[in-house]
Amino acid sequence: MTLDVSTIIEILGTISFTISGVFSAMQKRLDIMGVIIIGFVTAIGGGTVRDVLIGNTPVSWMRNIDIPLIILVTAICTIIFKHYIKTFKVTLFLFDALGLGLFTIIGVQKGLSAGLHPAICVALGTITGCFGGVIRDILLNTIPLIFHKEIYASACIIGGSLYLLMLHVIDPALAKLMAVAVVCGIRIVAVRFGLKLPVS
Amino acid sequence: MTLDVSTIIEILGTISFTISGVFSAMQKRLDIMGVIIIGFVTAIGGGTVRDVLIGNTPVSWMRNIDIPLIILVTAICTIIFKHYIKTFKVTLFLFDALGLGLFTIIGVQKGLSAGLHPAICVALGTITGCFGGVIRDILLNTIPLIFHKEIYASACIIGGSLYLLMLHVIDPALAKLMAVAVVCGIRIVAVRFGLKLPVS
Amino acid sequence: MTLDVSTIIEILGTISFTISGVFSAMQKRLDIMGVIIIGFVTAIGGGTVRDVLIGNTPVSWMRNIDIPLIILVTAICTIIFKHYIKTFKVTLFLFDALGLGLFTIIGVQKGLSAGLHPAICVALGTITGCFGGVIRDILLNTIPLIFHKEIYASACIIGGSLYLLMLHVIDPALAKLMAVAVVCGIRIVAVRFGLKLPVS
Repeated sequence: MTLDVSTIIEILGTISFTISGVFSAMQKRLDIMGVIIIGFVTAIGGGTVRDVLIGNTPVSWMRNIDIPLIILVTAICTIIFKHYIKTFKVTLFLFDALGLGLFTIIGVQKGLSAGLHPAICVALGTITGCFGGVIRDILLNTIPLIFHKEIYASACIIGGSLYLLMLHVIDPALAKLMAVAVVCGIRIVAVRFGLKLPVS
Repeated sequence: MTLDVSTIIEILGTISFTISGVFSAMQKRLDIMGVIIIGFVTAIGGGTVRDVLIGNTPVSWMRNIDIPLIILVTAICTIIFKHYIKTFKVTLFLFDALGLGLFTIIGVQKGLSAGLHPAICVALGTITGCFGGVIRDILLNTIPLIFHKEIYASACIIGGSLYLLMLHVIDPALAKLMAVAVVCGIRIVAVRFGLKLPVS
Repeated sequence: MTLDVSTIIEILGTISFTISGVFSAMQKRLDIMGVIIIGFVTAIGGGTVRDVLIGNTPVSWMRNIDIPLIILVTAICTIIFKHYIKTFKVTLFLFDALGLGLFTIIGVQKGLSAGLHPAICVALGTITGCFGGVIRDILLNTIPLIFHKEIYASACIIGGSLYLLMLHVIDPALAKLMAVAVVCGIRIVAVRFGLKLPVS
């Protein structure tokens, strides 16, 4: 793992996804092992579903031991320092939004490498960003949040599509940066102003 | 995609599975994006689980962009014309039964191509037909309908087995047609007369 | 399938996992087909998730028809003789604990064959042992038992780690036997004395 900007954002995203899973699991009064497992699943679920769907196996986190290690340490620290960490709600939300953006673009890139149709690449990006939370909610026996709360999957779809459009026009690194910023920005605006998609 | 009879039935099946997903999701008051995602998952879930289990990746819908496109258009139309579409309840049920039959036989055929045991092929057919609905119900946080409502998986098992038996006796195209008719017929009779399997 | 000790334990484990699934499903008043499907999923779920994650497809039970056959016969017998089988609660629990131990070690071994990191191998062992029950509980719309009841996943992690440690020190067959005994022993002690992990 080389420590470039992408890697750092990926680590921050993984950390904040883990924390979100751990907090959700603690609210449901799971035991410590259950809490850690939910933390794991939230952080790696999206990428795992993506890898399984495109046949990229063994799935990513099995080939990079740093990721499970970061999740484990994060989960344990979150359990120990839960009262302290809670006070960083805004910081965590920002990490989460950043992670969502980066996970989305990583997913889109994996689709491109597999030679898939652009629309499928965007779908893979959305799956990578969102399905960790979906599996977390399934395991905690609630309807996945992303289906009825603030704009979530839509942010991934918009950011992912924009990334593909910009890729051929501007520098790829810049396109990536802007796409992450768009996903992240949509989430921040949506949560800040309580924007929701209409119920049909 | 060539427009032979199988393809037309597959499209009709995909459309009716999508509509069933969209209606279930709207009942649970999901937002528009949640409704569309549930529509997708209901339509492609069974085939996706089948492809993942036999290692046929990237899964089918990622290699045929027509399918996601049909689902997207269907989902949006269903949301817009929901009151109108509701009046076609019987038509939709017939499409659904047809789709179930065809999806089952497609699953059996994929198993045969993979050189699997006949019983496993029937299982794959049943998974292809039923698991879209199972995943829909998991995401909507209810016990899957097929486990406690009118005969569903049983219709797939009977139709799939019959297909395998007939395959070596009569013309394959005819065997397919008859097997689809059997699955479809069992479903229609079961729903018409409210037949359920006994609770054990 | 040669009938060595491992195979016999695997069969006993499969049988007891199936019975646990069938009993859970009957409590939820599913129909007979639903009960049989839940029995299947409980018995093969863990190994299936493991195989899918490492790309070992078609998944194991599709390549060894004996396993589905054993599950089917077990499920039907359990439905017929439910009142009789209930009286063997302790025996069943012991089979279940044995099965958990063996499934765990099988999972670790699959990880080793795939050349994965030791920690990932332990994770695969835990998934193999636990995820059948997790999927059973998801389908039955409850929070997975293993997240809030007696020590379960922890037993797999301890036993799996011990197996890896012992593998290079003592005879592999002996290491396996001892690891299975450890998982099994932890489960028995935990349930006998109602030991739970703390809620965080």
